[in-house]
Amino acid sequence: MKATVYNGNSSFSVIDKNIETPKDDEVRIKVAYTGVCGTDVHIYHGMMDKRVAIPQTIGHEMSGTIDAIGENVSGYSIGEKVVVRPLDDRLVKPSDKGYNHICAGLKFIGIDSPGSMQQYWNVPAFVLHKLKPETDLKLAALIEPLSVAVHDVKLSGLVPGETAVVLGGGPIGLLVALVAKNAGANVIISEVNETRIKKAAEFGLQAVNPTKTDIVELVREQTEGRLADVVFEVAGVQPALDIMTELAGIRGRIVMVAIHGEKKPVDLFKFFWKELKLIGARVYEKEDYEKAIALITANELPFEKMITDVQPLSNVQQVFESIDKNPSGLKVLMDCQL
Amino acid sequence: MKATVYNGNSSFSVIDKNIETPKDDEVRIKVAYTGVCGTDVHIYHGMMDKRVAIPQTIGHEMSGTIDAIGENVSGYSIGEKVVVRPLDDRLVKPSDKGYNHICAGLKFIGIDSPGSMQQYWNVPAFVLHKLKPETDLKLAALIEPLSVAVHDVKLSGLVPGETAVVLGGGPIGLLVALVAKNAGANVIISEVNETRIKKAAEFGLQAVNPTKTDIVELVREQTEGRLADVVFEVAGVQPALDIMTELAGIRGRIVMVAIHGEKKPVDLFKFFWKELKLIGARVYEKEDYEKAIALITANELPFEKMITDVQPLSNVQQVFESIDKNPSGLKVLMDCQL
Repeated sequence: MKATVYNGNSSFSVIDKNIETPKDDEVRIKVAYTGVCGTDVHIYHGMMDKRVAIPQTIGHEMSGTIDAIGENVSGYSIGEKVVVRPLDDRLVKPSDKGYNHICAGLKFIGIDSPGSMQQYWNVPAFVLHKLKPETDLKLAALIEPLSVAVHDVKLSGLVPGETAVVLGGGPIGLLVALVAKNAGANVIISEVNETRIKKAAEFGLQAVNPTKTDIVELVREQTEGRLADVVFEVAGVQPALDIMTELAGIRGRIVMVAIHGEKKPVDLFKFFWKELKLIGARVYEKEDYEKAIALITANELPFEKMITDVQPLSNVQQVFESIDKNPSGLKVLMDCQL
Repeated sequence: MKATVYNGNSSFSVIDKNIETPKDDEVRIKVAYTGVCGTDVHIYHGMMDKRVAIPQTIGHEMSGTIDAIGENVSGYSIGEKVVVRPLDDRLVKPSDKGYNHICAGLKFIGIDSPGSMQQYWNVPAFVLHKLKPETDLKLAALIEPLSVAVHDVKLSGLVPGETAVVLGGGPIGLLVALVAKNAGANVIISEVNETRIKKAAEFGLQAVNPTKTDIVELVREQTEGRLADVVFEVAGVQPALDIMTELAGIRGRIVMVAIHGEKKPVDLFKFFWKELKLIGARVYEKEDYEKAIALITANELPFEKMITDVQPLSNVQQVFESIDKNPSGLKVLMDCQL
């Protein structure tokens, strides 16, 4: 079979290797599509070389069908459509308080162990979620990032009629905005890139450029002075941290989705003064995956528009090289059978 | 009557003035005791000269008895013991979402309008909370700061059996620790001042010096690796901000009680990684006052020990001058009839 391998130094190769028999408790998946995640791009840039066991196959935003079933696995049949929730929580301890999805010993499949940018992929059966036979496998490759958005909106405690500002209009920002809007919120995206602002409009989302529009005043007007009930920080930059505490109204909730690699200045006085909440949100729980699967299955949101390119697995190097250069691109899928 | 007046430049004077008739909707209180709050000390240091209308009587941690009753006020009788919840929320708007205690137009009585460091004090009746006839009026002067602690613990969502770390062992830190312990938590105070550490022990509270003891490891041992469920940041210094995200375990809640006047570096990655929550907490709500009144009335916690000095009103200048020099002092009350 064909497999891609990350070799370090921004270099991928495509290799031929044997299809492996699934071990006990495992299944083999015939991978249909694998989306390229921001984390995969970080890996490509060498930011996670300490964590990835180079040379390694990466990838975790995927869809596929069951191809072979190992010993001790029941409830699955060959040909069934599935996605993987790539969280290996087998090292969970009581001190994790039941929050398995962020347990201290969590291994992320596709980073800490081989991923899905290959034709066949063996995974422990406990990471599987079943799809309906009619599910579109291209859209299904969006279930993993959509689950992130579902988790973020769930932790925000958003209720219909509230106003949510999403800081950052990249793929995750757009998905958060779509899920929040679907949950009944008035949603405003803050994004500095004009191409992404136009993209957001194509999704029926309101997006403004905070370097051109006073977004705090805009939100104040749209909310009769209440300001934002929820702010999603998805941008990961200092201006977003500066404005998040301005945008949030009294008892507003700010969901920290972005990864800030170092300590950053935060206006803690505003947390005190307005009794704001900052809510850290990481990956997803089982129920978030089920909710995302239901949304993809219903296909009532403009998920197709999220997929801006589909490339054969053999083009892996070009795919990563072109992602950086194309801010209008959203989600690039790799067709793992080509 | 005798009244104290803050004149700016770290200077108080004691003046004679007429006792005023309460206006409509007001009562006149014969003030029994007024505690000196950290905010009063800030005023004394000139930090709030823009907000205080110099010359002005300050003070808001008080107890007293009803002395005269204005028009339109019902339900109170002369001689009744009361405390004031010093929040004037008459400018509340719909955009405050019903959170009157932190409404954008909030005026704090004793800062934004005259306070209780005088023999008689006229206040609108809506700020009153009644006390039982048997209530000790010295202890009752602690109801305002105790309400802060009750509010903080309420917003933390603390449940019995959880472990709480209180960063800072001053008067508010001690009260937060007492309320948290009373709510069923295992409580550890982090405090660098040895005098205050000894004080905490006198209250039956565990206090450690984080510059001498690895408090993260201590909490890890005491919780079998769970770390703190709740951290109260009452210290207001950078080392507290640095350690709060280390001390909090998975899904830990950090309550921001301290006032940080400028933006400070915060480890947002840990918020993301452990799905921590930061919860801003300011003053108190009506129900917090009622809870604090019940605690003071029951008098089952070592509140007497909190009162380390009682001075006559006429000593106001010496009281403020000595507070800075005495780290072992906790709460100084002014006897407002002397």
